[in-house]
Amino acid sequence: MFFLPLVPINSTTTLGRQSQYPNSWDVVRHFGIRLSDCFVVTQFSADPRPTTASDALPAPRLIALDWGTTSCRAYLLGPDGLVIETRSNGKGILQLSADPATKDAEFAAELTRLCGDWIHEAPHLPLLACGMIGSNQGWAEAGYAPLPSRIMAKGPALTPVETRQGILHIAPGLVKDAGADDHGLPDVIRGEETQLRGILSGKESPASSIIVLPGTHTKWVLLDEDEVLDFTTSMTGELYSLLIHHSILGRHSIPPRHPDEAAFLRGVDVGIGTESQEEGRPGLLTALFSARSLAMTNDLTADAVQDYVSGLLIGSEVAGFTRRWVGRTSTQEPPRPSITICANPSLASRYKRAFLRLGIRVNTAADDTTAKGLWHTAVLSGLLAKEKA
Amino acid sequence: MFFLPLVPINSTTTLGRQSQYPNSWDVVRHFGIRLSDCFVVTQFSADPRPTTASDALPAPRLIALDWGTTSCRAYLLGPDGLVIETRSNGKGILQLSADPATKDAEFAAELTRLCGDWIHEAPHLPLLACGMIGSNQGWAEAGYAPLPSRIMAKGPALTPVETRQGILHIAPGLVKDAGADDHGLPDVIRGEETQLRGILSGKESPASSIIVLPGTHTKWVLLDEDEVLDFTTSMTGELYSLLIHHSILGRHSIPPRHPDEAAFLRGVDVGIGTESQEEGRPGLLTALFSARSLAMTNDLTADAVQDYVSGLLIGSEVAGFTRRWVGRTSTQEPPRPSITICANPSLASRYKRAFLRLGIRVNTAADDTTAKGLWHTAVLSGLLAKEKA
Repeated sequence: MFFLPLVPINSTTTLGRQSQYPNSWDVVRHFGIRLSDCFVVTQFSADPRPTTASDALPAPRLIALDWGTTSCRAYLLGPDGLVIETRSNGKGILQLSADPATKDAEFAAELTRLCGDWIHEAPHLPLLACGMIGSNQGWAEAGYAPLPSRIMAKGPALTPVETRQGILHIAPGLVKDAGADDHGLPDVIRGEETQLRGILSGKESPASSIIVLPGTHTKWVLLDEDEVLDFTTSMTGELYSLLIHHSILGRHSIPPRHPDEAAFLRGVDVGIGTESQEEGRPGLLTALFSARSLAMTNDLTADAVQDYVSGLLIGSEVAGFTRRWVGRTSTQEPPRPSITICANPSLASRYKRAFLRLGIRVNTAADDTTAKGLWHTAVLSGLLAKEKA
Repeated sequence: MFFLPLVPINSTTTLGRQSQYPNSWDVVRHFGIRLSDCFVVTQFSADPRPTTASDALPAPRLIALDWGTTSCRAYLLGPDGLVIETRSNGKGILQLSADPATKDAEFAAELTRLCGDWIHEAPHLPLLACGMIGSNQGWAEAGYAPLPSRIMAKGPALTPVETRQGILHIAPGLVKDAGADDHGLPDVIRGEETQLRGILSGKESPASSIIVLPGTHTKWVLLDEDEVLDFTTSMTGELYSLLIHHSILGRHSIPPRHPDEAAFLRGVDVGIGTESQEEGRPGLLTALFSARSLAMTNDLTADAVQDYVSGLLIGSEVAGFTRRWVGRTSTQEPPRPSITICANPSLASRYKRAFLRLGIRVNTAADDTTAKGLWHTAVLSGLLAKEKA
């Protein structure tokens, strides 16, 4: 008998039974193991505990969906949020909702395709979703909770949607009102509020903390214990992708065989400089072109460009938020908030190194907290009345 | 007889004779005019003067090429730089030089295709080119002149290239050394130095001036009379194109029927704020996302997004350079440099309005000065020994 506790995040994983999706067994095939000899323990378990072949299957309690712009991941959750099964190959709202006349049918068909068997086997289970499925381009608008918002103290107001498969409850996002400051810029979060619940659950929250969720649109969240005071979105990830795939900087670059630490840190330093008030420091629009001019003057190799640009963008982002949210000097009072980066290890490490360049130590946390967050959202909102959050 | 003094910049234009290129006559066909009734007066004339059907054709003196990354424009120039004919449909170096083994033949073939008849008719004419044709991805590396560089006082050192059509002289660019400041960022110009010669020719240069050349990569040039002291590149134009064509901001936008002045100025104000030290002002990476969050909160219509993003980028760029090069307050001594924007009227107007938002008046100038600049480059470098610059 083999136990495979670690499987790729993007595959379909099961606890105690085989998945119907073929890609879940790639790792098994890769190692030449007979399927009948295997139990796979998912890495997403909210409550990991020793599992043996003789364990009975836990009874499912919740079908939970992280339904975003480009993908949908479905979780079958058991007692205490234990992940029984995960399916990661669902379509995002961009692939489904182009035509308003047919979008209801398209979303319903995708829900059936992804977890119709779960619903069929246990039709009494509540259905809960978070993410862009609740935006004005999703299945139904699920609203936003305004700031400040104490995200662990009371249940979010779920929006029920009648579907062929029963009622789908959609979690609200968070909105920062345009009037919150003098500059008239609102901001919105959808999905990350649920991820935050997963991060904060079962922990003592510090009085003041910043949680950074790097990604296509990186979210910076300022909290007082579990109360979200402010958040802001930075387009760092999308801009990096645009520059590498579509700009003149990317056209003259080649992917590095290994991450180029020196090029990354060189970029970080230039990026930090874009937020400096020192004379002669270029702004971001100008600093980015240095990836081209350094290459043209033979001072940056083609395989160093991507890490240099990555460092430049992250350095600029981290320095900007540090100046605005953390304070300029290490002696400033009151004490700095604790900072936690939630991302895959490689990306988290990039942010950690950029902060270190400013003399700031940060914590890192795994980014696979959405299943746990969906569970706590269901409990806090009364969808699972008998469970404890 | 008809005179057509204004034709589109991107068409092929002639003075006194018909072009062999069909697209030069689109405007004529559009108006239903018989070709035999036409003389077209180019708008690129370096020395515009009244032209009548009875004027004799001036003798050509120089074949000049503005050979850039994505296009090549050829000019047949007469006495005093008079533009006899312009051809705009040449291929840029990106379309020609992918394979080092064949690039010589490709560049030569393109030169023949574009102006082989000019060379055949007057083989004694000097050939001069500026732009990326002289970069390490062009036909031959033509070097860079270091800063400071007095661009009108002495002739630039041309690089001669032996070709099947005779010697092609390529003008050098300008380079800002990485060691010029403490921050180690070099910068390069290729082509704009020639455009600057066209702008400065025949004028009294002010003691201190800034010339802005907006485009894909906007160049900011700081001068003392005709001496280039500093220059910097801003990726504003390319970033705008990336965001509108490839990002989530563009995906949810539609082109406006008419430029949206209010959306543009709203963007300018947010962009200016990204360079502010005031608390609560978002940086550029964050401010850009407001084009999405304002749309999601129904505060920006889909057809206003593009002008908003345009304003945001230009506002950020203009405020950044104003802070760095012009001074923070209007009372600062010494007197502010004069500022001139050289761009097509629509783009120049955007920069002018962004500066006005900061209380700064600027001049605008046409951007079709490269033919004039090529002429002066030829005269200053001795390629046309008997002509006066």
